[in-house]
Parts: sequence; C-alpha cells; structure tokens
Amino acid sequence: MDLTAALGRFEELWSPRIAAQVNDYDVRIAKVRGEHVWHSHANTDEFFLVLAGALHIALRDGPGGRERVVVLDQGQIFVVPRGVEHRPASPAGASLLLFEPTGTLTVGDRHDAVPDHVDVTTGHSLR
Amino acid sequence: MDLTAALGRFEELWSPRIAAQVNDYDVRIAKVRGEHVWHSHANTDEFFLVLAGALHIALRDGPGGRERVVVLDQGQIFVVPRGVEHRPASPAGASLLLFEPTGTLTVGDRHDAVPDHVDVTTGHSLR
Repeated sequence: MDLTAALGRFEELWSPRIAAQVNDYDVRIAKVRGEHVWHSHANTDEFFLVLAGALHIALRDGPGGRERVVVLDQGQIFVVPRGVEHRPASPAGASLLLFEPTGTLTVGDRHDAVPDHVDVTTGHSLR
Repeated sequence: MDLTAALGRFEELWSPRIAAQVNDYDVRIAKVRGEHVWHSHANTDEFFLVLAGALHIALRDGPGGRERVVVLDQGQIFVVPRGVEHRPASPAGASLLLFEPTGTLTVGDRHDAVPDHVDVTTGHSLR
C-alpha cells in the first residue's frame, strides 16, 4: 500500500484510517489540522510518525504536571508514554502514521469534552 | 527523533537499530542492500515501511508455496503475515522502518543458512 495514495482516499480530519494490522496492533494514518483534545491512554503507549507537515504534541509530563510542547516535523517520530496527558495539534496541517493496539480510542480513556471536529473512533477502514 | 538523522548514525547493513519502543513492540530502522535470507516468524507479523529506496520482498505464499515478489518503493508499506516464508532484498539499497514485537530475531525462527553479511539480532540500541 502506498501511504500517499491512501491519504488521498479520505479528507476527514482527526479521523484515522486503519492502513494495516500487525498482530493485534493497528497501523493508522490520519490527516490533522487545528487542535485535538487533551486525553490520555492508561494502558498503552502511542507512536507518531509525521509523514507530511508538522505536528505539535502538548504533554503534561513535566515536574508537577507542567506542560511542554514537542514539535515534530516530517520524518520525525515520538512515543507518548501510557498515562501521559497529551493534546496533538497542527496549526498548518499534517499527515500522520500511528501504531497502537487495535481498539485504542482516538480520545483515550480520560479526556476533556470532545469538540465536534474530533472523531471518537477506534479507526475506520480504508475504503 | 528524526529518522534521517538516526539513519546517519550507523552504516551496517541488515542490522536494525531500535528507534523507539511502543509497549512491548520495537520500532526499528535499518539500512539494507543486497539479499537477506529466506526466513519466517511463526508467531508474529512483520511490518515494513520503505523510508528511502526500494525493497523487494520475496514471499512463498502462492498456491503450493509458489514464490512471488512484492516491490515496495519509498512511502509504501507491507505486512508479512506470521508463518509466511519471505526474503527481503534491495538491489540498489533502501532504508526501512519496521514494527515488530521486542525480541523478534532478524532471521526469524526458521531460516536458511545465514550469510556473513546478515546480522542475527533482535535489534541494536541507537548510540
């Protein structure tokens, strides 16, 4: 599967597609722009690879839960450890590849109120 | 972590480096050229993303174990299902990202005689 072609098959933002499965993990691809929601996954790490554009991941993992932002450009990777509150964002837009266990919700298991533009999903099939 | 920079930190072929860990899985990066060895992993699928160059994966998964070759260019992904005999190769060289369970051997658990240029490893740390 060609990732660029697969990204061309949908337009929805913050709405990952399942590009492949590896044992009981998904390889998901997503288009993003603007802000996601603060959330955390109690039981799983989450892997990000920026395929295009730039992704900002705000993290509350500093001393006393202080906030920092990791900026990832194309070709950069980052793992958000389980339990860490984070909020992905992309002011100018980005395309992402994610690895996470099949069934992982986009908004985690603890999250702020979910805005309308964020899809609460465990990933959609690529049509 | 920047994948291009990380790939610049080693030269060894067929000798994956562990770029990140996601739960009990590794994200590995590798430089390859020439042929790997026919092998299979009884208990795990194996994910390939071509970061640069082109990868040929020979597979014995046709009717009667007939052989075919999947050619992956930059930005293409493929999952070799568990149990399927395969032999990665890259006539002109490639850089890869792999996703597989921590501890997975590069030559699987069933393999042909391993040539000297193939590193039998579960992945090295990036120094």
